[in-house]
Amino acid sequence: MSDRYLTFVNSPWGHWFAKTVGLAQPLRLQRQQSGLANPVIVAGAGRLAAEVQRIFRATDTVTAQPATIKAPSTVKVQGAVFDASEIVDLKQLDELYEFFHTNARRLAPHARVVVLGTAPEHCSDLSQTIAQRALEGLVRSLAKELRRAITVQLIYVAPGAENVLESSLRFFLSQRSAYVSGQVVRLEKPVDEVPDIDWGLPLKGRRALVTGASRGIGLSIAQVLARDGAHVVCVDVPQALESLQQAARQVGGTALALDITAPDAVAQVQAHIREHGAFDVVVHNAGITRDKTIAKMSEAAWRSVLAVNLEAPLQLSTALLQGQGVNPGGRIVCVSSISGIAGNLGQSNYATSKAGVIGLVQGLAPLAAVQQVTVNAVAPGFIETQMTAKIPLMIREAGRRMNSLSQGGQPVDVAETIAWLAHPASGAVNGQVVRVCGQSLLGA
Amino acid sequence: MSDRYLTFVNSPWGHWFAKTVGLAQPLRLQRQQSGLANPVIVAGAGRLAAEVQRIFRATDTVTAQPATIKAPSTVKVQGAVFDASEIVDLKQLDELYEFFHTNARRLAPHARVVVLGTAPEHCSDLSQTIAQRALEGLVRSLAKELRRAITVQLIYVAPGAENVLESSLRFFLSQRSAYVSGQVVRLEKPVDEVPDIDWGLPLKGRRALVTGASRGIGLSIAQVLARDGAHVVCVDVPQALESLQQAARQVGGTALALDITAPDAVAQVQAHIREHGAFDVVVHNAGITRDKTIAKMSEAAWRSVLAVNLEAPLQLSTALLQGQGVNPGGRIVCVSSISGIAGNLGQSNYATSKAGVIGLVQGLAPLAAVQQVTVNAVAPGFIETQMTAKIPLMIREAGRRMNSLSQGGQPVDVAETIAWLAHPASGAVNGQVVRVCGQSLLGA
Repeated sequence: MSDRYLTFVNSPWGHWFAKTVGLAQPLRLQRQQSGLANPVIVAGAGRLAAEVQRIFRATDTVTAQPATIKAPSTVKVQGAVFDASEIVDLKQLDELYEFFHTNARRLAPHARVVVLGTAPEHCSDLSQTIAQRALEGLVRSLAKELRRAITVQLIYVAPGAENVLESSLRFFLSQRSAYVSGQVVRLEKPVDEVPDIDWGLPLKGRRALVTGASRGIGLSIAQVLARDGAHVVCVDVPQALESLQQAARQVGGTALALDITAPDAVAQVQAHIREHGAFDVVVHNAGITRDKTIAKMSEAAWRSVLAVNLEAPLQLSTALLQGQGVNPGGRIVCVSSISGIAGNLGQSNYATSKAGVIGLVQGLAPLAAVQQVTVNAVAPGFIETQMTAKIPLMIREAGRRMNSLSQGGQPVDVAETIAWLAHPASGAVNGQVVRVCGQSLLGA
Repeated sequence: MSDRYLTFVNSPWGHWFAKTVGLAQPLRLQRQQSGLANPVIVAGAGRLAAEVQRIFRATDTVTAQPATIKAPSTVKVQGAVFDASEIVDLKQLDELYEFFHTNARRLAPHARVVVLGTAPEHCSDLSQTIAQRALEGLVRSLAKELRRAITVQLIYVAPGAENVLESSLRFFLSQRSAYVSGQVVRLEKPVDEVPDIDWGLPLKGRRALVTGASRGIGLSIAQVLARDGAHVVCVDVPQALESLQQAARQVGGTALALDITAPDAVAQVQAHIREHGAFDVVVHNAGITRDKTIAKMSEAAWRSVLAVNLEAPLQLSTALLQGQGVNPGGRIVCVSSISGIAGNLGQSNYATSKAGVIGLVQGLAPLAAVQQVTVNAVAPGFIETQMTAKIPLMIREAGRRMNSLSQGGQPVDVAETIAWLAHPASGAVNGQVVRVCGQSLLGA
């Protein structure tokens, strides 16, 4: 769980040593604050400029205007937003070069950078399609080279979705997204109307179900959703009853001991719903690994991993949607994995299940949208948990360092990303898989 | 250019040493032969079974039928094809587990494995969508764990594209795809009618244009297209005239000295076409790098990379398509890069241009299809060229080993993949980006 190198390198001696010897010098990420980076440089003249300004005003964030491009100040900034949504040809990409060339060094450590674009599939002509698709290469490169715990994302905002940017901008410009970098997120026309939001307690009065909630990432998810105001129903297997009840008490929620692969699992959740009401947020976090190469893998290892990680979320999601178990405005969030994206040696069962989760999200999203419900997934990379603590030292060290932030993530990083997806104002995010991996090098 | 470790580890002493010390033991890839792997195990009962059998009969390949699943033989096989195209739910995924669990050890070194599926976007219900998407996780995991130079791909064949599998199956079951692994390829309804094919000289009577053809990957592309029967027009900058003429002579083609970023570049190609006829294959291979972090990058470095790598292919492609410069049945192939997919430190210009190439391919493909032309890209990983030979030793070694085949690719690997995309029978492959990277760990 403890990353001793990170502690070492952030001590005065360790810093000197790492610098002298030429080792990686990851900064300890700052995660606590929910406020927007401040001050922020805003540039680019797209159709999102007005909304971006409105959000900054609403959050009392000081912004500097694009005039700074040609006359760089030496004042450090905590973030940058470039509205590239109306870039329509390759020549205009030069504006991004100019902006980042001039301002890269002005970004303070832990700065947040967001580029806003128009997704290629929404572009009307070829030049625009290409220019907008090219942004991905720029953003992913900057996320790799800016270092100093700076994160960079690309948010494609569909035409008509200009006014549903706030929950995403608040997330990606705050410390809460500290371990998310190099990601491409699409905002579409939202599945529901954005209600009045209490940004301090966005989930107030809402009911959330979290599977695998007794420890690790699941417990962190329950805590963060509870912090945001939700009543959390914590689910875990009956064998974990004690820690489950403790978790539920801790978050002021309810414990529901339940094996999600049991034949009557869905019926048990439905019985709970009849008694206590439908859910607004459902997080399919429970998951298991049974690693072996395929030649050595038992049928039980194959089947159990698929049953817990994929079949159970599928059955519960479809049953809840069919039986009004998820309220309109509801959010279903699944947990995929980098292994599901890139495959992994010795994890053919796990990777199959987690790739299937991506299929679940992409296949269910349009169906759920009809009920004003979104379905998304997070795909964690290397997260510091009891599970990863058991990995042999050298492999664990490689896993930790092979990302742009040179460290593993914390359970709370996954939880905060889920809280953003679960947010009542995030109805524009649907059918997406967002990696929480510090921009892991691994991918497909 | 020379991978001394690969040579060492494939010597008797080196093999013993690497085994004893526990180092990676990459096999030297076999690339020469065009024939299909033989014998091959065939399994799965989908809608592609009949066509797969027909292809094997046409190529005199011995196949063993799925009966072998339960009664494994110890005879090694050179390949395996699993037709998973009609798997419609999660339970049926067990068939793939059983097949690979039983047969993984029967695969000889250098074996070729292909799983055939139905793309999630073509699936009619949710369970099928999920099961088919899950195949990606399985295939990418197997590609990582089978080792011994075995490659594994997933080919999604759209309903109605059953009879256009042959060029792809021949490629992915032959040595020509030695450095392609862990890839997902989609076959759609072809843009053109498949003509009668001379499989020994598929490009006979066809004219190909290859930019950057005087050396490296471009030269290899020219050689492979010429081997397949094409008359190749080799393009390179006037400064490289001598090696360009030599390349053209070597492939029995024509030299066309031309700076593709010159204002009259398109006009020059069009003049050439008026004199000699339109092209059937256009390969945009010319590309440059000018690496620097964005803060240190000059405007010239930014612009020149975008001009050569992205603007020139865009302008030439659209001009040729508009002016009947590409014949019906034609193929446009671009060269993207892993950097364009994943981004890269110090390559924000290059990655932007190569991500733009993906946009070009995806945006132009549907437009070109109307003229019975396909547009695709290859995305090379670490390829042994004069360019990569200049990379500092340690970084070069990391680049070489960070893939499932633990070695860099050769220019011919890129060229063979392009030849498959340029094939007259490959009209079902359109708008795709296929990585030639030995399943590099890097990705997004």
